[in-house]
Amino acid sequence: MMNTPLTLVSLVERAERYFPKKEIISRTLGGIQRFTYKEMGARTRSLASALESLGVKKGDRVGTFAWNHHRHLEAYFAIPSMGAVLHTINIRLSAEHVSYIINHAEDKVLLVDSDLLPMFEKMKGQLKTVEAIIVMTDEDVLPESGLTPLYSYETLIAEADETYAFSGDTAEEDPAGLCYTSGTTGKPKGVLYSHRGLVLHSIALSLADTAAVSESDVCMPVVPMFHVNAWGVPFAATWMGSTQVLPGPMPTPEVLAHLIESKQVTVTAGVPTIWLGLLNELEKKDYNTSSLQRVICGGAAAPKGMIRMFETKYEIPFIHAYGMTETTPLVILSRLKSHQKDLPEEEKLELRSKQGVVVPGIDIKVINENGEVKPDGKDMGELLIRGPWIADEYYKDDRSSEAFRDGWLYTGDVVTVDEEGFVKIVDRTKDLVKSGGEWISSVDLENALMAHEAVFEAAVVSVPHPKWQERPVACVVLKDGYQNVVSKNDIIKYLEPQFAKWWLPDEVLFMEEIPKTSVGKFMKKALRDQVKDYMSLQS
Amino acid sequence: MMNTPLTLVSLVERAERYFPKKEIISRTLGGIQRFTYKEMGARTRSLASALESLGVKKGDRVGTFAWNHHRHLEAYFAIPSMGAVLHTINIRLSAEHVSYIINHAEDKVLLVDSDLLPMFEKMKGQLKTVEAIIVMTDEDVLPESGLTPLYSYETLIAEADETYAFSGDTAEEDPAGLCYTSGTTGKPKGVLYSHRGLVLHSIALSLADTAAVSESDVCMPVVPMFHVNAWGVPFAATWMGSTQVLPGPMPTPEVLAHLIESKQVTVTAGVPTIWLGLLNELEKKDYNTSSLQRVICGGAAAPKGMIRMFETKYEIPFIHAYGMTETTPLVILSRLKSHQKDLPEEEKLELRSKQGVVVPGIDIKVINENGEVKPDGKDMGELLIRGPWIADEYYKDDRSSEAFRDGWLYTGDVVTVDEEGFVKIVDRTKDLVKSGGEWISSVDLENALMAHEAVFEAAVVSVPHPKWQERPVACVVLKDGYQNVVSKNDIIKYLEPQFAKWWLPDEVLFMEEIPKTSVGKFMKKALRDQVKDYMSLQS
Repeated sequence: MMNTPLTLVSLVERAERYFPKKEIISRTLGGIQRFTYKEMGARTRSLASALESLGVKKGDRVGTFAWNHHRHLEAYFAIPSMGAVLHTINIRLSAEHVSYIINHAEDKVLLVDSDLLPMFEKMKGQLKTVEAIIVMTDEDVLPESGLTPLYSYETLIAEADETYAFSGDTAEEDPAGLCYTSGTTGKPKGVLYSHRGLVLHSIALSLADTAAVSESDVCMPVVPMFHVNAWGVPFAATWMGSTQVLPGPMPTPEVLAHLIESKQVTVTAGVPTIWLGLLNELEKKDYNTSSLQRVICGGAAAPKGMIRMFETKYEIPFIHAYGMTETTPLVILSRLKSHQKDLPEEEKLELRSKQGVVVPGIDIKVINENGEVKPDGKDMGELLIRGPWIADEYYKDDRSSEAFRDGWLYTGDVVTVDEEGFVKIVDRTKDLVKSGGEWISSVDLENALMAHEAVFEAAVVSVPHPKWQERPVACVVLKDGYQNVVSKNDIIKYLEPQFAKWWLPDEVLFMEEIPKTSVGKFMKKALRDQVKDYMSLQS
Repeated sequence: MMNTPLTLVSLVERAERYFPKKEIISRTLGGIQRFTYKEMGARTRSLASALESLGVKKGDRVGTFAWNHHRHLEAYFAIPSMGAVLHTINIRLSAEHVSYIINHAEDKVLLVDSDLLPMFEKMKGQLKTVEAIIVMTDEDVLPESGLTPLYSYETLIAEADETYAFSGDTAEEDPAGLCYTSGTTGKPKGVLYSHRGLVLHSIALSLADTAAVSESDVCMPVVPMFHVNAWGVPFAATWMGSTQVLPGPMPTPEVLAHLIESKQVTVTAGVPTIWLGLLNELEKKDYNTSSLQRVICGGAAAPKGMIRMFETKYEIPFIHAYGMTETTPLVILSRLKSHQKDLPEEEKLELRSKQGVVVPGIDIKVINENGEVKPDGKDMGELLIRGPWIADEYYKDDRSSEAFRDGWLYTGDVVTVDEEGFVKIVDRTKDLVKSGGEWISSVDLENALMAHEAVFEAAVVSVPHPKWQERPVACVVLKDGYQNVVSKNDIIKYLEPQFAKWWLPDEVLFMEEIPKTSVGKFMKKALRDQVKDYMSLQS
C-alpha cells in the first residue's frame, strides 16, 4: 500500500475542491459573516503565507486566544497545514496560567481576539518567546495597545499569497495541535496532538454509529475552539463539507437558540451547563428547533432530567459522550443498540444517561484491586484507555508518569461497565470513599441527597477511620426554611432504602455553603480538610 | 500520541466484546446457519490456533477458495489476526490461472469449499508450496479425494484452542490480505493489502457519507468474498457489529430476493449484473423489500434504466461506487450533495449514473496530454489515484511500473469530472479513439447505438488512419428481422444529432456477433484486429 501520511492538509483541500460553495456562517462582534469553503481555503492559505513571512517555521507553536469564529477555523487549518503547531489557549484561565502556558509552549506568534486583548496588556514583558501578536479584528482597524509588534489579521492576509501551497513534507506523527488541561491543582499540563491522531479522530467522529458528521449537516460547535479543538468538530465538519455555524463571542442561550432556528442547525455539541441554559431559553420563548437532529453532550455527566426533556418534550435525540483533553477527546459515545430501541422508556433513559460504548479504534480496560471489573454495571474500577488518538505523555512535563503507565492512560475516572459494554462514570478516583476494601461512590450519594426536597446542595467526602480506613461523611446545605427542621436522622433514614447499609454516611454535617472552584465544581480536597478538622474537634 | 498500530485484530475483538449476541446468518449447502459474534470469535480463535498447529507462521500466505459464508468470514479474521496473509482466490478462474496464483503466492495452506474441491484434484502435484488442504464442509465429513493431507474444518477447530490470543506484535504495515486481479490479458497480478490499508478502508466504508455501515444494519455482501474482500464489507460490518447475511454457494436472484425479505437486509453490495437479475426476479414475483435502505453497485457502470427502476419503482436508494482490486476497493461513491436533492428527477438520475465523488482520505487527479482536465464534465482524461489504501505495486511482479508511477496509480480508466467533483467513467484508455489529438469515447457511442431500436449490440473500436491517427468504426449486431432493413446511413443519421461531426464512425460494420470474454465483456483487442483486417481488405 502507498505510505500516504494522514495529515490535516487533505481535509481542507477536500473542502475547497469538492464543496466550494458550502458555507461557514460566523457570528462575530460585527455581526454574521458568511464564507464559502472556496473563500475559506484562500484565506487559510493566505494566513499560512502571512505566518511564514512572520518567521513561523515547521514545528513552531502558534497560539490562538479566541472565540469560535471563521478566523479561528482558518487558523485551525493554516497552522498545522504549514507544518506548525496550533496551540489553542483557554481564554477562561487566569493571567498567571495563560502566561505560564504561553511560555511553556514557547509560542512564537499569538492570534488574539480584539475583545480578549486586554489580558495581554498586563503580561507585557512576561511572554518570553512571542515575536508577534495578530489581532483577529472584524475590520482592518487595530485597537489601542501598548503591545508590539501588533498586526491586523485582515491586513496581513490581504497582503499574503492566497495560492500558498501547504506543506507536502509533513509526516503523520508530526505535531499539529497543542492544548493544556485546566486541572484543579498544579500548573496546566499540555497535550500534543499529532496529524495522525487528529485525522483518525475526525474520521471516528464521522462514522454512521458515532456523531455521523455529514455533508448534509449544519454543525454548530458550542464547545469552545480553545477547548480540545472544539471536540474535533471543526476538523470533521470541514473534511465532510458540512455547513458550519460558529457562534462567536459570548454565546448566550438566546444567541444559540436563535442560531439553531435561523441557520437550521442539525447537530451541535457542548457541555451540560450549555444545554441546561438552552432548555431554559426554550421554555421561556418559542423557537423552532425542528432542524436539530442530535445534541452531543460531554465534559460532565448529563442529568437524567435534562436528557428526558430533550428526548421527550423537544424530540431532539441526545447523545451522551465521554472524553478528555488527553483523548482528542472522543472515546465513548452513547447510542442505543438496535435491540435496545424497543426497551421501555425508563430503561432507555438509564442507558442514555450512561456515557456509552467505546468507539471503533479505541480500547479500554476497567480495573480495581481485584483486576478487571465484572461487566455487571455495579463493580467499580478506574477507566484505562489506549488507542491511536490517545496521548502518551504530557508535553515536556515530568508529571507524565502519573497518568501514562504500561501503555495505558489512567483517567482517574471511576466507572462501571454493563454486559452490553455501556460505561458509566461514578466518581473520580481521588473522591471515592474506600471503606473496608470496598468502594463507595461519592457521586451516587450526592445525587441521592440532592434529590431530597430539603437539600439545596450536598457533597460527600471521605474521612480517615481506624477500622475501615475511610468512611463517608455528607456535607449538606439545606434550602431556606428547612434549617433546624431536617435532622441528621431524617437524612440517613431517607438514604437507607436506596443504599447498602455500609454505604450510609457516618455523619451528616449541615453547612452554609460548600467550597467551590472558579468554574463551580466542588472543591473536594478543601472540603476533606475542613471535615477532618471538624471531626477531630468532635472526638 | 500512542503509536497504537491499526490492525484487524481490534475489529473482531470489538465484535466479540460489544456485540456478543448479534448474528452472522450463513447460507450453506446444508441450509441456513446462525452464529453469534461470541461464537464467531471463539471459532475464529480456534481456526487461528489450528492453522498454527499446521505450521502457519507470521507472514505465510493461506489461500481461501470459497463462497460467501461464516467459515470464510472466520478465515477473514483468523488468518490476518495471527499475522499470516489471507489470500482469497477467485473460484471462477481457469485451473491454469488458479495454480499459477497459488504457486506465485506460495500458499502454505488452502481452505476450500467441498463443492469446489474437484478443481484441485486435477492440480495434484502442481501446487508446489501447499502443505495442507482444509475442506470447509458443513458436517464433520470429508469428501472422497486423492488430495493429502486433507483436513475437515469443523474437526480441526473442534480440537483447537478457542481462547487463542491473537498476534500482539503485528505492525500496521504488515501484509494482511492478497488478491489477484483477473486481467483480460496476461497472468493475474497480485495486490497485497496491509492491515493499515484494510482498517482505514473499513472506517472509510462506515462513514455517514459513504456506505454508512452501522450496528443497526443487516449487511448482505453479494460481491464475492474471493473478489477484493467482498469490497471490504465483512471487515466493516464485523467492526461495527452489524448483522451479516452471507448468501453462500451459487446465490441466484431468487435466493437473494428471499434472503432480503426473510432476513430484513438493510444494505447489500454487488455488480450491475446481480442487480439486473434481482430486478428481473422482483418483476416476476412479489417480495417485500421494504427493509432495504441502500443497494451499493460497483465493478462496472450501472445502466440508467436500472438505477431508475430501483429508485422509483422499488424506492430503494441506489449508490453507485467505483474501485479496483488495486484500491481495496472503495475510492469514489455517488451520494447526492444536500443542494442536489431538490434537482429535477432526470438531473438526479444523471448524477446517480456517474460514479460519484472521491471518498475522504483518497486523492485523485485526471490528466490528458494537456495536463489536468477541466472540471466541466466533458474534458476526458485518465484517472490517477493515491491514498493510504491504494496499492503501490503488484506482488512480486515486474509489471508494476506500468500502473504505479510518480506516486500515483494509473487506473487505465478514462473519465470526466464535473464542477461538483462527480467522476464519470467514459472508457478504458486502450479503447479510446484518439482522432486528430482529440478523444472519442467508444462507450458513449456504444450506449447511443444500443439505444437504437434495431440494434442488439454494438462495439466501437479504433482503426489506424493516415491523417487523423485513429478513427472510430462501429461494429453492429442487428436484432432479428432488421438485417438488410437498416443501413449504414440510417445508423449514422441516427447518431448525427447526438454527437459532434468528428465523433461519427467512419464505417458501420454489420456482424453476426461481437467476440466476448468468458465473463461477457467485449474483446476489444480481438475486434480491433478483426476490423483492421477487414478494412485493409477493403482498401
